[in-house]
Amino acid sequence: MLIIGELINASRQAIKSAIENQDKDYIQKVAREQYASGANYIDVNAGVFYKTEAEHLKWLVETVQAEEEIPCSLDSPDPGAIELALSAHRGTAFINSISLEKERYEAMLPIVAGTDLKIVALCMSDDGMPDKVDDRMAVADRLVNGLVQHNVPIENIYVDPLVQPIATNTDYGFAFLESIQQISEAFDGVHILCGLSNISFGLPERKFLNQIFMTMAIARGLDGAIVNPLDKKMMACIITAETLFGRDDFCTAYLNAYRSGLIEA
Amino acid sequence: MLIIGELINASRQAIKSAIENQDKDYIQKVAREQYASGANYIDVNAGVFYKTEAEHLKWLVETVQAEEEIPCSLDSPDPGAIELALSAHRGTAFINSISLEKERYEAMLPIVAGTDLKIVALCMSDDGMPDKVDDRMAVADRLVNGLVQHNVPIENIYVDPLVQPIATNTDYGFAFLESIQQISEAFDGVHILCGLSNISFGLPERKFLNQIFMTMAIARGLDGAIVNPLDKKMMACIITAETLFGRDDFCTAYLNAYRSGLIEA
Repeated sequence: MLIIGELINASRQAIKSAIENQDKDYIQKVAREQYASGANYIDVNAGVFYKTEAEHLKWLVETVQAEEEIPCSLDSPDPGAIELALSAHRGTAFINSISLEKERYEAMLPIVAGTDLKIVALCMSDDGMPDKVDDRMAVADRLVNGLVQHNVPIENIYVDPLVQPIATNTDYGFAFLESIQQISEAFDGVHILCGLSNISFGLPERKFLNQIFMTMAIARGLDGAIVNPLDKKMMACIITAETLFGRDDFCTAYLNAYRSGLIEA
Repeated sequence: MLIIGELINASRQAIKSAIENQDKDYIQKVAREQYASGANYIDVNAGVFYKTEAEHLKWLVETVQAEEEIPCSLDSPDPGAIELALSAHRGTAFINSISLEKERYEAMLPIVAGTDLKIVALCMSDDGMPDKVDDRMAVADRLVNGLVQHNVPIENIYVDPLVQPIATNTDYGFAFLESIQQISEAFDGVHILCGLSNISFGLPERKFLNQIFMTMAIARGLDGAIVNPLDKKMMACIITAETLFGRDDFCTAYLNAYRSGLIEA
């Protein structure tokens, strides 16, 4: 399971303030904590800054990587911001994200073509958010084939089928779970990744709903997630579901998590 | 989701003592509590009594149904015990269980043939416990077809693919989950039911492992479970997973569970 730590996002007030105050210590602390808790990549997002997003994103990358080469997920719909941040990034970055929206697709494709960058491919087009399984399959088909034809190795593509709130339509959860499995089966070697907190929008006890839905998504083949790795209960669900899904030889990861106090009934 | 409450089992000391003392009040209390907590059927098992199992099983049925017609799941590998208990049962009982073991199969088949009884069909044969998905498919195929040919409606058949401990083989969890889905897809209308606590045998924090595995099994199509309905955390996982799987119109069951304090993050 590939974990992208989601906390360095300027839509959170503490991060926005740290960026405005150029508070490197705070950003580095949040990066280190996520990395130590199991994040493979640290997402950096400065999207709330309208005109200065690109320079802030670059500063975030430099700050996160100042002490140690912690890999980043560069999170922006703006190709200019991605390119500037990428110029400062050491090692192999994650690009978050490309979609089938015409403008975004055409601008992002040259950035990743022929590289070894990993990329999130959102199942979204100019027709908007996907509704049913077939909508997602159609968009995934064009995205995956387009990227592969431009020499992006299929194992570097992380398709996000896009979660929609179950409170607005009872079928949205099932459609998402079914999409995970169908996309995995249709494109051999592709990964499936998502941020899934949208599922619980409008309902009480959102954290619990999110944990249960993550567990269900892993049972369908999800192998990447954008989450808060400091959320111990969520991480316990992920590690345990991975073990039960056969991705943990000799239950080693589960037993290590238990010994470190992460698993609590 | 069909829930069979598992607590009235003479392998539990309190139940064994209650049977020995003919303590109707205690048995009725355990039955009522499970029924009120969402059990659709109350399992009754007197298997620890070697020579008197049949009469104790009949007494359990009479006791559980004395005040109210609460449906029972008659739990025995012994056709004689099943038949005696069935003679005392009012309403439609669940038979737990038939398997492909020759002796058991031939003795149980006439009991359910042409009736409206519901039946658990264990994926077990004289070759022993199943190991891989194909083993389960082969046994399920013969069991389901055999029952249907003897006029058991397919919607009354609850196939149990049989869980084995993940601690003994890392692939056992995945094989079970895959079996749920393949059996559901192969036999239109059949149900899949299990008791799944075996999955966690030999590992710490078994309750948590069982909850996570139940959640994963529902994501693959499980629609019946033999559980302790008084285990609030397990029931919260089941209700929430059902909602996220699209089996809860307008999230009504989830919201009711939340209002009654069952859902806690």
